[in-house]
Amino acid sequence: MFKDISTAEIDTVLKKSHEAFLLYRRVTGDAKASFLEAIASGIEGLGNELLETAMGETNLPEARLAGERARTCNQLRQFASLVKEGSWVEARIDTAIPDRAPLPKPDLRKMMVPLGPVVVFGASNFPFAYSTAGVDTASALAAGCPVVLKAHPAHSKTSELVAGVIATAIKNIGMPSHTFQHVHGSSFEAGKGLVQHPLTKAVGFTGSFSGGKALYDYATQRPEPIPVFAEMGSVNPVFILPGALKARSEKVAEMYAASITQSVGQFCTNPGLLLSLTSPELNQFAKQLGERMKIIAPGTMLHPGIASNYKKNRDKALVQKGVSLEAASNDAPKENQGESTLATVHASDFLNNPTLVEEVFGPYSLLVEAANIEELKAAVRKIPGQLTATIIGEEDELLHYADFVQLVIEKAGRVIINGVPTGVEVCPSMHHGGPFPATTDSRFTSVGTDAIKRFVRPVSFQNFPDALLPAELKQNNPMGIWRLFNNEIRK
Amino acid sequence: MFKDISTAEIDTVLKKSHEAFLLYRRVTGDAKASFLEAIASGIEGLGNELLETAMGETNLPEARLAGERARTCNQLRQFASLVKEGSWVEARIDTAIPDRAPLPKPDLRKMMVPLGPVVVFGASNFPFAYSTAGVDTASALAAGCPVVLKAHPAHSKTSELVAGVIATAIKNIGMPSHTFQHVHGSSFEAGKGLVQHPLTKAVGFTGSFSGGKALYDYATQRPEPIPVFAEMGSVNPVFILPGALKARSEKVAEMYAASITQSVGQFCTNPGLLLSLTSPELNQFAKQLGERMKIIAPGTMLHPGIASNYKKNRDKALVQKGVSLEAASNDAPKENQGESTLATVHASDFLNNPTLVEEVFGPYSLLVEAANIEELKAAVRKIPGQLTATIIGEEDELLHYADFVQLVIEKAGRVIINGVPTGVEVCPSMHHGGPFPATTDSRFTSVGTDAIKRFVRPVSFQNFPDALLPAELKQNNPMGIWRLFNNEIRK
Repeated sequence: MFKDISTAEIDTVLKKSHEAFLLYRRVTGDAKASFLEAIASGIEGLGNELLETAMGETNLPEARLAGERARTCNQLRQFASLVKEGSWVEARIDTAIPDRAPLPKPDLRKMMVPLGPVVVFGASNFPFAYSTAGVDTASALAAGCPVVLKAHPAHSKTSELVAGVIATAIKNIGMPSHTFQHVHGSSFEAGKGLVQHPLTKAVGFTGSFSGGKALYDYATQRPEPIPVFAEMGSVNPVFILPGALKARSEKVAEMYAASITQSVGQFCTNPGLLLSLTSPELNQFAKQLGERMKIIAPGTMLHPGIASNYKKNRDKALVQKGVSLEAASNDAPKENQGESTLATVHASDFLNNPTLVEEVFGPYSLLVEAANIEELKAAVRKIPGQLTATIIGEEDELLHYADFVQLVIEKAGRVIINGVPTGVEVCPSMHHGGPFPATTDSRFTSVGTDAIKRFVRPVSFQNFPDALLPAELKQNNPMGIWRLFNNEIRK
Repeated sequence: MFKDISTAEIDTVLKKSHEAFLLYRRVTGDAKASFLEAIASGIEGLGNELLETAMGETNLPEARLAGERARTCNQLRQFASLVKEGSWVEARIDTAIPDRAPLPKPDLRKMMVPLGPVVVFGASNFPFAYSTAGVDTASALAAGCPVVLKAHPAHSKTSELVAGVIATAIKNIGMPSHTFQHVHGSSFEAGKGLVQHPLTKAVGFTGSFSGGKALYDYATQRPEPIPVFAEMGSVNPVFILPGALKARSEKVAEMYAASITQSVGQFCTNPGLLLSLTSPELNQFAKQLGERMKIIAPGTMLHPGIASNYKKNRDKALVQKGVSLEAASNDAPKENQGESTLATVHASDFLNNPTLVEEVFGPYSLLVEAANIEELKAAVRKIPGQLTATIIGEEDELLHYADFVQLVIEKAGRVIINGVPTGVEVCPSMHHGGPFPATTDSRFTSVGTDAIKRFVRPVSFQNFPDALLPAELKQNNPMGIWRLFNNEIRK
């Protein structure tokens, strides 16, 4: 529907983005906060038109989209508060000691500054929260980086509506023109061109492994490599300890039937792998979970490509050696629908088959039965980097398995006790990231206020006159922010 | 003299390093501090033997080496203090709100955890501070990562001595065996094998662009890419504003003759490029600087390879279009010596010749004469990412050039007013890094306590029982560290 951006247009867009950067990076935290707040209000102001457009493009139900819109506006406002308050720049000040021997100590002050133009790719499964004005855009704009947003082709009209809100906010708040630019492109060429333009300084992406890894390779093979923050999904293993199964297998089954099938399994934190130790209780749990999943009807997926991929990957998983189908939706799936599916396998087969740790994006989970704790530990070692890992266990049992918990922590960005991985709280202590291949950079989060750290770098200011220093580093601390001042944390 | 490590040995070393990691990552901050302090004391305990060995291998004078040794021990002790105090883990805590509508808020706590085994490459120009127990090793060990150190072949005996100290400290303090391992290798194959081993999780390097970029490519082309922190040098441009030349050209010349030739120019922060506006005072400054450099005798460089590269790169620079030799050491250089050299060029030639922004590692600087401020700004834009940039100007003049200062900040990791770039203070507000090609990752420093951030990643702990939480995140804050607790910074 929308024409792909051409190579010549990419060049123009990035040049304008860099021009905007030279002005926007000097915009105050207060002004950036007003800008982000205006975007949030503008999105709310679109009302039902936005929800209806997104429902039409994504097949997501209204309640889910309304919740995602609220989260998106909340994210924008959290970043607004963050930059208004100002301490996020990690100011460090070491004052001069002119008479130090053998050499005088200079005055040194350090803080974070923005990297430059950021290219963000809209995500198919979150038309608001990880797309046009989603967390990548919000954190980049908060950092002082202009954004070039490539709309996801599956919801480009929704994206246009939100981009319109941002354009209005730029005008109303008086931000530099081209602080945000909205482009379309469904080809790999468009993505490659945006990532490899010399003025692009960082990239944000949420989506498939193949898509994210391609962007990472484009970026690291540039003459000047740049960081790519690609969140590429995960199987989110769940380890169920024997005591918990004895005490409450029905309750765990209820919780997980809901988590596996929520939004037709189209969350990057969807639990795709359940692991436990062989026991009569485990057999019972498999049946309980299966019964609950059977009665969850197939749901329409985001777009036909995702539905056909789900069918293909599910079919591939089910024919692997030792894998049995435990349960599937009682109702047959209609066109573009995904059916709830539970499969089982013994750890001995799981350990020798890397296909079984690949994500099946949709309402699918594989239950792995280990003969003993050593086999369970071997399974942990076979699992690559994950966004999340979950452990279900009784309180005293968890302490008994403390070493096992440590092993699990090595694999994931977030570890959950007695909960489900779906549902990503937006707050400072959230880490939404994880070792490769969950993301391309385990050191950064794409949810929560620390997401701003992806788009900044430190600069030291040595021996600067106070008048030339940024407000954050001036001697009398006019912004009243927290700083490390001569090794002491204070305002 | 020492045999290169073989592929089979690399595999054994990394496996042992990973085994050490599983234990070492749980070692307390207090114990890690004792370990780092024991290394510092052990290095001091080597006394003259260490200095004499290093003098024999590097041609560096005793006073310089004694100073570097002091800095190295200081670095180790700074990291010891950092991990003993403990706030560096960036703890963030958001407590549960069980009755929040529509969904309860879980208890979430986040902190930094170590990445895993780190491979560090010793640097030729800093046998102590950036080598065996240098800042890469110190920061990785402080973070909780075991280190595999590849000795620089130009000072492998010095490296063996320091490695012996670390081995003794491991035993005496009771650290896990193989927390530190020392290997030799002068071939690219050895470096590639270490970087591409699947258990290696990060790499530290200080050296040439070609060396650092090769390691970066090895690392990013792995099936599981890992971060490489390569500090690859810089021309460290110095912008001299007209008022300063009018007021104190002789003083600036004195300061820069010393900075350009210090340690035979073998610092990554050596000022290799001076830029100013055409004026009678600039002509006078070129003569004053030249006269001072002529009387600075050639010095013996670190090793024959560096001396021959200096000659080659200096000769290449001097035959570029428009480049004139302004001054060179009065004494002819002897074998393996580098002669002090000042060349000049007009900005019109500089702007069209990328060769002139390449580093000439040694006591060489190129003075660029711009016709006007627009040409000077164009020159800034042509200069790639830098470790440092310096501006020399009178106080009121600096305010007049505020926009120019902003342009310069975009290019560098540290910006110095009225000083020299050589001399890198070791303190929290130091950023020793910069946009590519100065380093492979502008977001991290290789000097100062923030260097620890290179080797850690955040993990969120959701709904953990207090007994299972790391001490840093326990409810009653037993370590008494600074934490962001429900959005409030407090102990």
